[in-house]
Parts: sequence; C-alpha cells; structure tokens
Amino acid sequence: MTLPVTLADTACCAPRTASALPLAEAERIARLFKALGDPTRIRLLSLISSADGGEACICDLTDPVGLSQGTVSHHMKLLADAGLVTREQRGKWAYFALADGALDAAGEALRGV
Amino acid sequence: MTLPVTLADTACCAPRTASALPLAEAERIARLFKALGDPTRIRLLSLISSADGGEACICDLTDPVGLSQGTVSHHMKLLADAGLVTREQRGKWAYFALADGALDAAGEALRGV
Repeated sequence: MTLPVTLADTACCAPRTASALPLAEAERIARLFKALGDPTRIRLLSLISSADGGEACICDLTDPVGLSQGTVSHHMKLLADAGLVTREQRGKWAYFALADGALDAAGEALRGV
Repeated sequence: MTLPVTLADTACCAPRTASALPLAEAERIARLFKALGDPTRIRLLSLISSADGGEACICDLTDPVGLSQGTVSHHMKLLADAGLVTREQRGKWAYFALADGALDAAGEALRGV
C-alpha cells in the first residue's frame, strides 16, 4: 500500500509515524464507506448490479429486501448522494444504475490508505 | 462485477432483478465498511500503514489526529473488532499493525457486490 505522506518537518527527530492523511481527504473517503456501511444498501447495490441492463426500477427493489418503498427510497438517496448510483426518473418510477467506476473508486481509495 | 446470484424460482416470470445478497453476507460486508466510514479511523489506518515497520504505538497516534488517547483507543478497538488491525500489548503501550490482507479483503467484497 502507498500513502501520500507528509513527513513532519522537524529535522532533529525522525518521526515514528508520518503525518495523518489530510482531514478533507479522509472525510471524502469515509463518506463513501459510510454509505456502504449498511446491509440494506449493500443488498440494494447487489440487486442493481445484477439486474437486467444494469439498472433497476425502485418498484423492483422493495420486495427483495422486504422494506417499504419509502425506506428503500431513503437508502437509494444516500447511495446517490455518495455518488455510488445514478437516478433517472421515468414517468412514475425512478430507475437506478451503478455509477460508472464508483465501486472501483472505493477500492482505489482503500489502496491509497 | 459479479454477484452470487440466486434467481427467483418462479419459472413463469423472468424477474427483472435477481434475489438480494443473503442478509448475513450483506451484514458481514457492511460491518467492514462501517468501520471504515469515519474520517478519524481512515487517518489512523493511514498512519499505521505508513509507520516504520508497519506498526504504530498508540502513544504515536494521538498527536497526528489531535485527539485524546481514550478517543483514539476507542477508534482502534472498532478497527480491531472489524479485523482491520491487530493489537499487541508491550508493557504499558499497545501497538497496532494492519491485519494481513484486510484492506484487500474489503476491496474484494466490493467486487462481489
């Protein structure tokens, strides 16, 4: 693993640990993983990733997870806000697809830690 | 991406979405990401991964994140419980190292979603 390291600038004493990842960068990474840190959202992502055409209507997501449409909509909003899924409204229903490269980017963030 | 898929067994109607990932598996994955879903824990992991010898004394982790030892200990316990770090007590101090393959396993879990 690699890390964008900023060594402490005290020349006299070799630090045993480097400086921490900048807070803003850590917050960005944590926000992504927080969105993934819920079993229902993991299940919803798996449903979308395995759906025909790589997208799923919210009307097809409620039954498999056994939750109301309001609850599923809430989870999907969190996933969309985290940039993990895209949302398209078609008439009455919202359709969701995995955002291109979003899960790869999450894996990449892990390698940067 | 691939997914362990269980198609619904109703032969008459092609489901537009497959069955959801089993709850226990989704819970296991979510637990891992929940531990990663906090900026302080991301910073602590980055400090440990970049530390000399790949391990860090808790006494060297408090200053870089600007938090008390009690707070840092709490975060380290959550990371250890999630299997992301190992802990070794040496006299007065606890030393932490990244658990072998733990971050790779998290990346792998993403590919399985």
